[in-house]
This record gives sequence, C-alpha cells and structure tokens, in this order.
Amino acid sequence: MCRIFLFLFLIILTESNARSHDKTAVKINFHEMSLQRLTALRALMASQPTALAAYIIPTADAHNSEYIAPVDARREWISGFTGSAGTAVVTSSAALVWTDGRYYTQFQQEADMSLWTLMKQSLPDTPTIESWLASNLTAGSVVGVDPHTFTRDQWTPLQTALTKASMQLTPVQTNLIDEVRTQMGDPPPKRPNNDIIALPVQYTGKSAGQKISELRQKMVEKKVSALVITALDEVAYTLNLRGSDIEYNPVFFSYLIITPAAVQLFVNGSMADAVTSQLRAELAHISVLPYTQVLQHLQALAKELSTTGDGKHSIWLSSDASEAIHRAAAGVDVLKTPLNLISEVSPVSLMKLVKNDVELEGFRQCHIRDGIAVIRLFKWLHDQIDAGATVTEIQASDKLLEFRKDESDFMGPSFSTIPGAGPNGAIIHYSPSRDGPQKIIEKNDMFLLDSGGQYKDGTTDITRTRHMGKPTAEQKSAFTRVLKGQIMVGSALFPQGVKGNVLDSFARHSLWEVGLDYAHGTGHGVGHFLNVHEGPSGVSWRPYPHDPGLKPGQILSNEPGFYKVGEFGIRHEDLVEIIKITKDSKHPKAATLVGDYDGRGVLGFNTLTLVPHQKECIDVNMLTDFELSYINAYHARVLDTVGVILQQRGLNQDLQWLQRECAPMRRD
Amino acid sequence: MCRIFLFLFLIILTESNARSHDKTAVKINFHEMSLQRLTALRALMASQPTALAAYIIPTADAHNSEYIAPVDARREWISGFTGSAGTAVVTSSAALVWTDGRYYTQFQQEADMSLWTLMKQSLPDTPTIESWLASNLTAGSVVGVDPHTFTRDQWTPLQTALTKASMQLTPVQTNLIDEVRTQMGDPPPKRPNNDIIALPVQYTGKSAGQKISELRQKMVEKKVSALVITALDEVAYTLNLRGSDIEYNPVFFSYLIITPAAVQLFVNGSMADAVTSQLRAELAHISVLPYTQVLQHLQALAKELSTTGDGKHSIWLSSDASEAIHRAAAGVDVLKTPLNLISEVSPVSLMKLVKNDVELEGFRQCHIRDGIAVIRLFKWLHDQIDAGATVTEIQASDKLLEFRKDESDFMGPSFSTIPGAGPNGAIIHYSPSRDGPQKIIEKNDMFLLDSGGQYKDGTTDITRTRHMGKPTAEQKSAFTRVLKGQIMVGSALFPQGVKGNVLDSFARHSLWEVGLDYAHGTGHGVGHFLNVHEGPSGVSWRPYPHDPGLKPGQILSNEPGFYKVGEFGIRHEDLVEIIKITKDSKHPKAATLVGDYDGRGVLGFNTLTLVPHQKECIDVNMLTDFELSYINAYHARVLDTVGVILQQRGLNQDLQWLQRECAPMRRD
Repeated sequence: MCRIFLFLFLIILTESNARSHDKTAVKINFHEMSLQRLTALRALMASQPTALAAYIIPTADAHNSEYIAPVDARREWISGFTGSAGTAVVTSSAALVWTDGRYYTQFQQEADMSLWTLMKQSLPDTPTIESWLASNLTAGSVVGVDPHTFTRDQWTPLQTALTKASMQLTPVQTNLIDEVRTQMGDPPPKRPNNDIIALPVQYTGKSAGQKISELRQKMVEKKVSALVITALDEVAYTLNLRGSDIEYNPVFFSYLIITPAAVQLFVNGSMADAVTSQLRAELAHISVLPYTQVLQHLQALAKELSTTGDGKHSIWLSSDASEAIHRAAAGVDVLKTPLNLISEVSPVSLMKLVKNDVELEGFRQCHIRDGIAVIRLFKWLHDQIDAGATVTEIQASDKLLEFRKDESDFMGPSFSTIPGAGPNGAIIHYSPSRDGPQKIIEKNDMFLLDSGGQYKDGTTDITRTRHMGKPTAEQKSAFTRVLKGQIMVGSALFPQGVKGNVLDSFARHSLWEVGLDYAHGTGHGVGHFLNVHEGPSGVSWRPYPHDPGLKPGQILSNEPGFYKVGEFGIRHEDLVEIIKITKDSKHPKAATLVGDYDGRGVLGFNTLTLVPHQKECIDVNMLTDFELSYINAYHARVLDTVGVILQQRGLNQDLQWLQRECAPMRRD
Repeated sequence: MCRIFLFLFLIILTESNARSHDKTAVKINFHEMSLQRLTALRALMASQPTALAAYIIPTADAHNSEYIAPVDARREWISGFTGSAGTAVVTSSAALVWTDGRYYTQFQQEADMSLWTLMKQSLPDTPTIESWLASNLTAGSVVGVDPHTFTRDQWTPLQTALTKASMQLTPVQTNLIDEVRTQMGDPPPKRPNNDIIALPVQYTGKSAGQKISELRQKMVEKKVSALVITALDEVAYTLNLRGSDIEYNPVFFSYLIITPAAVQLFVNGSMADAVTSQLRAELAHISVLPYTQVLQHLQALAKELSTTGDGKHSIWLSSDASEAIHRAAAGVDVLKTPLNLISEVSPVSLMKLVKNDVELEGFRQCHIRDGIAVIRLFKWLHDQIDAGATVTEIQASDKLLEFRKDESDFMGPSFSTIPGAGPNGAIIHYSPSRDGPQKIIEKNDMFLLDSGGQYKDGTTDITRTRHMGKPTAEQKSAFTRVLKGQIMVGSALFPQGVKGNVLDSFARHSLWEVGLDYAHGTGHGVGHFLNVHEGPSGVSWRPYPHDPGLKPGQILSNEPGFYKVGEFGIRHEDLVEIIKITKDSKHPKAATLVGDYDGRGVLGFNTLTLVPHQKECIDVNMLTDFELSYINAYHARVLDTVGVILQQRGLNQDLQWLQRECAPMRRD
C-alpha cells in the first residue's frame, strides 16, 4: 500500500463512495445541523478566557497516529467531510478545510458548501494555514489549538509564523469539539479499550525487559532522566504487547514513561493475567496507571527532577510527541524555569526500524503463508471469471480474507484492501463502498489488488495487477515498465547509510523514458505485526526528514506503479528486506563485486513477497537479459517455496496453476 | 570541477603542496609568530565592551563567496592553515579549526600543533562548533563573530544553540583579525578594486535596464520597498558588468540596492566611461556610492521606510546575505521596532539560473572553441609522451592555457586547473605546486585533466581522463562504468520541476553494481561568464536546499568519477543544458515518448562539451546497444562540429587525430 506524496498539478483523483444528499429535505436538515455545530463551536471560542479568533481542528489523535479512531474524528464531525486527510480552521466568519487533490470532489459532496470553504492544498497558489491566518486575522488575534492534536514539530513553525504576524498561538486543554458534542447531546464515542494481548518472545525475538534495558542504556548515553514514549506502535513494540484500538493497527491507547528506576504504562482498563505474567517473565517491571493521568504525572516528574540532584535533568521524547506532552514534560505550567527537553527522533523508532533475526525470520515465514492466500485468490478469481461468474471487487476482497484466515497466526488485514478493477485501479487509495451498486470485475479489466495481513510473526503488504482477459499493447508496455522499475530497485546495490531517497529514481527510470510516472512514493517502512506504514525511513524523491540511513534488517516496500485515469491502474508491490552483500551472498550481483564502497559496506534487497507476476502482461522483448533471468529466478523461487506447501496441503489445482504461472519466460 | 560533499568515513585525501618546516629555527620562529598572533587576538577579545569568551573566524567574505580574496583570508592568517575550507574558534585557552577530510594532513603540516587543535568534521563523533561551545564555555559566556562573515542562514542556528545553552552570540562590527594585523604592523592587503568591464547585450541577451525592470516587477508582486543584492555574481549579472577582484570569478566587490525609484551601486573606485555609457544605453540609471557606505545607507533606508506610508514596508534580501546586512536592513541599531525583512532565496539567483537564448547560444559556441583547445592539448600531450619527451602536470596545464588563449573571447581560466597524473588523479581537488619537484606525466599514467575557461559568451568546465599508454583491465572497467553513469544521466528524461537530486543515483548505478562509488556530487550549476559553481540547483544525493526544481535553460555539470587512492583517478565531466523534449526533439529518446508526465512536461539534456572520450579505455562489451550508439553519436557530433573548424584553420594534424578518436566503436 503506497504512501501518497502528491505532486503539484496531480490529476485529481477522488473516491467514489461519497454520501449522497440528493433529497432536498435531507439537504436542509444537513445544512441546519452543520450550521448548529459551527454556531456552537463559535460560541465556545468566544467564551474562552481569551476569546479565540480561530480554532484549528486537524485530523489527528494525541499519538500522531496515521489512522485515527472514531473518538478522534473531530474534523469529520465539525465539517461533514469524511476523507482521511485535512485540517479545519474555524473563525467567527469563516470555516475552511485544507485538504489534498484526492479529496476535492469528495469534500464538495460531503461538506455544506454554503458554510465551508475548500482550500486546495495541492495547488501552488493556495496559501498555507499559517499565511492564511496571518493575512486574514487582525494583529493581536489569538488562535487556539488542542495541544494534544499537534506535534511539537507542527506547533513550533505555526507559533513562529503567528508571532511574526503579532498573533498568538494558545493551547486549549479541553478539546472544543468534544465539548460542543457533549453540549449538543451528541457526545464523542468512547475511546476504545480493547483487549491487550502479549506477543511471546518466539515472535518478538527480544524480551520487553531487554528492550527496556537497552533503552535505559541509551538514556545513560544521552544523559537523560526519563524517556517518554508516545507513539502507540512504540509502546506496543517496547512491551511486546498488541491491541486493536485502531483499525488495522494492532496498538492500544497508551503512553509509557521509562526512568532509571521505573516503567509506567498509562492505559485504560486493566491488563489480563496472561499479559501481566508475560511482562513479569520478560523482566519488565511496570506499573499501570490510568491513561488520562499522563499529563499530571509528567508535570509531577518535571517538578521532582527540577528540585533533585544538580538540577540538570533532561527528559527525552519524540519531536512527534504532542505539544501537550512536551509542555507537561517541561513542566511549563508548574515550573518557573521549564525543564530541558531532548525532542528529536525517538530511540524506540530507531530500534524497531532494524528488525532482529527472529522478526526477520517471521517476516519471511508469514510472506510464504500470505503468498499462498493471494495465489489461491487469483487462481479462484480467474476460474470464476473464465467461467462467466459475476465477481464484484468486494467479493474478491472478501474471498481473499477467507483465504488469509486459512493461514496460521493470521490476525486480520493490515489495511483496507484496495481491489481496483478497470478504471478503479487508477484511484490510488481506492476503497469501494459496501453500500450501493458494486463494480463487477470484467473479463477485459485490468485488476489491481493491494492488500496485506497482520500475522503474529510479521506484517504483509502486496500488490499484484492481473488482466482478467487479454491486455492491450499499451497495458503490456506499462506493466513491463513498472516491472522493470521494481527490478531496478529490487536488484540495486548501494552503500550502507545512504537515505532511501537515492533509490526512488531507479523505480521510475523505465517509465520516465517514455514520459510516464506515478504520483506516489516508491517505498515505506513496515512494522513487525505493527503498523503497515512505519517510519522513519522510506523511498521517495525527497529524503524522509528523520531517515537515519539504510541498514541491514530494515523492511521496505518496493512499489512502483502507473495509473491511466479513467482506464486502468498498475502497481507491483513487494516487501523487501535490506541485507548486507558480500561476494559470497546469495544475490545476482554478489559474485562480481570488486569493492565495498571504501568500507561503508554493500547493501541490497531480499524480496519477501512470493506471488508471481502475470506473464501475459509482460512484454519479454522489453526486458534486458538480466531482467529476464531475474524474473525467471524469482518465479522459480516462488514455485519452490510455495509449491511444496500447496502439495503438502493437497491443493493440487492451485499447485498446477502456480506451476504454469511460474514457468520460465523466453524471448521470441 | 566537482563540488565535494564528503561522505563520513571518506578516505582522507590531502594536498601535496604543504609548506615544509624542516628547519628547527624556522619552526621556532613560526611558533613564536603563531603564538604572538593568538596572544594579540586574545587580548583584543578580552578588551571588548563585553569580553568575548570565544571568537569565531570562518573562511568567508562579506558576500558569501565560494572563493575569497587575500584580504579576507583571516582564518589562514591566524591559524597558518591555507586550505580552502575551515572555521577557527579561539577562546582564552583553546584554538581550534574545524575542517574536512581533504585537509587533515595539510592542517597538521601547516598549523602549529602546539597551539592549534584540529577538529575533524568529517568524523561522526566530532562535536559541531555549536555543541563544542555549549559544552566548553560557561553559562553566560559571550561569543563574538564579525557579522559580515556569517550569513543569516548560518547566524540563526548558532544563535539559537547558544541561547539554549544560556550564552550569547554577539556581532563584533570591526573584524578583530584585521585589527590585530594592523596592531602588529602586518595590515591586511588592500581589497581588490580592479577594472570593471561592461558585457554588451550581444553576450548577455538582456539589458541591465530590462533586468532591473523585471526585478522591480517581482518587488511589486512581493510587496517590498527595496531589494538588496549582496552576492557578487548577482550584482555583476544584474548590471551586465564583470570584474576580476576574485581569482577565476569575474566579479567585483559591490552591493546593489534597488528601490522603485533608484538603483544604488556600492563599489570602490570609479567606473570607466565605457561602463557608464553602456549602463546608460541599457537604461540602467544607477548612482554609484562608496562600497564601505552600504550599511549606513541601509540603516537610513530602514529609518525612512519605517516612518513613511502605512509603516508596512519590507526589504527583500537573500538569506545568504550577511548578518551585518540583515541587521542594517532591518534597522536593528536605529529603530525601536525593526523593519520586516523577507529573507529567502534571492530573485536574482532564480533569474540567472535560467539562461536566456543568447546566453545559451553563447554557451554552445564557447564550448566548441573550448573543445578545440582541449583536443589540441591532448593531441599535443600524446605526441610528446609518445616521443619520450618530459611533460610535467604543470607544463600540460600551461600548454592548455596557451591553446585556450588562441580562442576568441577567452578571458582566463574558470578555476585552478586540476592536472592529476597517476596517483594525483585520485586527489579530487588536486592543485600541483609550482614550487619544488614536479610530477612528470608518465607513459603508464592515467591522466585526469579538469579545467575550464571564462569566455565572454559563456563558461566551460570539462574533465577528460586519458591513459598515456595502455590502461589495465581494472582501469578500463572503472572508466567504462563512470562513462555508463555519465550516459545514464546525460540521456535521462525526467519531469519538469523535479529537483536535481533525483538524477544523482543514475550517475552511480553502474559503479554501485560492483561496490564502487565517488565521494562528491554529480553536478553543479554554472554561471554565464560568471562563477563556475552557481546555485541554487545541483545534482547530489540530497536536495540542494533552495533548488526551485529543474527547468529548461539551466546549465549543469554531469561529472561522475572513480578514485583509487594512491593509484589513479577517473572523472568524465560535461556541461549540459536542460532542454524541453517533445516527440519531435532531437534526442535519442524523443520518438518513443507516449506521455508528458500528466502535463508537467518532459526534460532532458543537450551535452555542450565537445571532446571525445578515449576509446582505448572503454570496454565496449560492457556497453548496452543504447550506450554504444549514444557514444558513437556523440563522437560523430564532436567530429562534425569541431572538425570543420580545425580544417578551416588548417590544423590538419589535429583534425586527423580527432578523426581517429571519433571513429565509431564496434563490439568484438
């Protein structure tokens, strides 16, 4: 699944599942409801101790999560717009949402356009929120934000810009949207508090106690007195626990504070005995405190540290932690001289970026099982369509889930499946609605299927594109160019320590040669039975800001694509593992190595994903000798690895299908 | 000529022309002199209104020039270290220089190591200047800097870091090194004040009046009341004037202030009549003021603007302008509320980045003449060495200058020629000394020759590498891989607006495949009869911070390399022009275009440099069909373009040599 970084001038892609407001009565009610919500918010803004000239509502929770739970969908509630990205700004006379090109049409369908203004942030002439505020509010204005919903990295530049314009950015501790909802008798849903499970060391490869002790070692090197962990996947990783509070992301709402003497977990509800006993067995001695008490505990800690020892204590946290957490940790409201904070990329994020041997072996193993599910789906789908049966995109997606459920340690999808048939394949973040008419996968459709699974031993994310009948020459050519890009990345050697951006152009080279491109990045990091998008590394045309440089043991996606709007989409996505290469490595370029980049070390990739590419869509004459032998070797490996298991399970028809799919290609 | 961005762990390269201090008496005198200088500086630091705990002496002039004039070589004078890069920090008890891996050995040879500490800034564990100051000075310390020698972009982060550490960064208006020199009877040399020449519009393609009027248009759009131009090449470009105050850079010490009503040039000495009359003819109505009065004029302007109109005036300048200029323009010392500054990439730098048609045609023409000079040099050199004559690196370099002087509109070298024979070829910024023994170019040497010329119609920068006898298999392989990299960049198509960094990995791909790399960027911008290194675009593994995105009409170098320390160096450097590509363009990939990146537009390169690569060093079997036909087509073009002129001039032997060099290659 790709992370989108929108080009300016990107052809605008929209989702097709917009709510319909086609009845006048509904429209009037909708207008009244929207207006009531805005009016109530404005009243609350005016009644603040210092009246707010503007209130900003981002799409965010207190943990900088990529996906948010319904309780945090505040921008959606106030604006009516349900897209996954956008920031609302409400003043006494204006209400605006900044969002990107994916959502322009959807916004206009969902929001009440008599009340709301769409700010098209992909257009170069659209002002940023800062500059809009600076030119539309009068000097002396106060702008309010719930400091839980802004990271320090977001807060600081906004504060600087507003100060420059003689305005003030103020943290409003109680979320005004939550308050309005309660006032209006439509309180926000409860924050999820689902069961937490313990992931045994046979999956994690390292005990929670060991992780905590390594973090404490880093704290000693950094000379800090506490480490505050705020990202949900980082808490889950550190304690070897998993949850299900956010769809697709096996995490739970929590904070973690580590000091030399204690580990405090702030979480709602109680922990099951199995969890507690695993933590004990892994020598992670933690105390459990209510989720809502983290700020006051941080303030107390800041106070305590400021008065003990030499008074030179520091607290370490991620610059992606919220402004609220930063202020509490610095003791802003309780100390005359705030405590020193070290606010930078989190050490947990750098630790979990490099997978250990057990995690890596888990990734390899779950990719075999996941490959079986995807292979079985495609075999089934071709059979259905060849037999003239009707299969909708959603039915294909559901069938895939069935096949995944057959696999051991499967815990659920790692994101919402993207089953784009025909023109829908060109909608990069497509998600078909279960309501209304369904798109049937037709015999002459290209079908792009991007999906992934959460397994106890790892996370998968795979896209394969298959034509249900006979591809056109244009489709074959584009399919082959995307494949050449994927091979150029997959087979690349590069110096250890370079950032992921240096690989991006390899994925585009073959497309660029004929004037084609794709409007998303080439690769993202992947968590181990954690978030399918994991920082801080990635492959895009610009460096990821906190990319520490590529190292063996990282997992990345390798997913070039091509999208012809209104006709078809192509994406080939593998997950790959970064491996160290020497002359003896099992890698097609290992034997000819003559250097190791002056001692920096040679890195390359091992492809984890094991599902063949459709040979009917490959123009063999466009491949170089190297590319042809690379793809044939890959298909042979898929058959070797997966075929045995199909045989063991007696899935002979699937095996026969796979054998045909993996038979070597030859040039005419 | 390449711009170096050093890798960590870079093999340390050093220059071989270090001064020798082999006599004890000289050493003692040298020690005493170094000590006296430091002692005098420390006394001056202590006697400032607020005593300075540290004084920072960068390698810089007041215009952020890449090369500096002797009058500005203050770090060299205080430290004894003559390298081109480094920053000195002097405290009451310590004296340190931060410099990069090129200069570690040279520093130890040149500086008095009993007084000075070398801070190896290429090593990951070396603290930055900020963090060294923060941990080595006591809270409350005052650090002094001549604000002319720090840009605002350098000043702000240092100030932030020191403030965090409860220290203060203070601007010291009078340069303390200049003061010490004067005190010690060794005053700094005079600031150069050489003749300024007017470059007619037949070369510049746009009158100074037109440029000023376009800048004024931008000032209206930006709503600013004045534009301050501080970079020397930007002043020269705007006024169509050239100078020779800095070696190799045809610029003159000056500042330019443009307001809606006036253009003020701050410059030493008087202007020749020819210059004045050209400016008049080009409708550039300027007043000339003394160079040293710029600060007081800016302060007066700030004062005036703060009291007129609505009081909302802004001044526009480059964030690379000095802190001194920023403070004066804001009226820091004369106004209660400083004036608003717009401090960002300079509009002149963005204007001159895209060459106009006359400039582009000039670039094409001067590259033909420059190619003739380089071709004649190589022909002559092979003849000499084949005949057993002795030719030193410097003699080859001098001979090349002779050939360039034969060419019309030649104004001088564009940088110090790098003539690296054998192991010297691996020293990336090699510059042989005229003193002491000279390296003779041997029959079994690889010879890397990086040189360039300033012509009235353009600037050249070319590197060719030739073996004087028979290259080894290793040399041929590396030579061919570097060439494949150059072709992959030179033949690339890419979307308009991408930043130069997306091309960098193409240049390295073939080297990376076998574990080789080079420790410098791939391309830099080039001025039009201006600086051979020109911002703000370039091709390196990280984006240039102010790169506005590539556009047709830019000039870049394309210069991958490979360096085997102690043995040989290879670099192939062309200058290329960015061109728009459509299906009808003269470009090897034009005919097969099927898209234009969704309307963004397709860009590619036209290679300007016209000198063949040595076929004996190319392993034809390592080239793809495309590469082979590309290089053969290039050689045919060189012969077509240059051969005619050699014939016209009756240089028949040179022509015959060129014909052999450009004859097509075939596979075995």
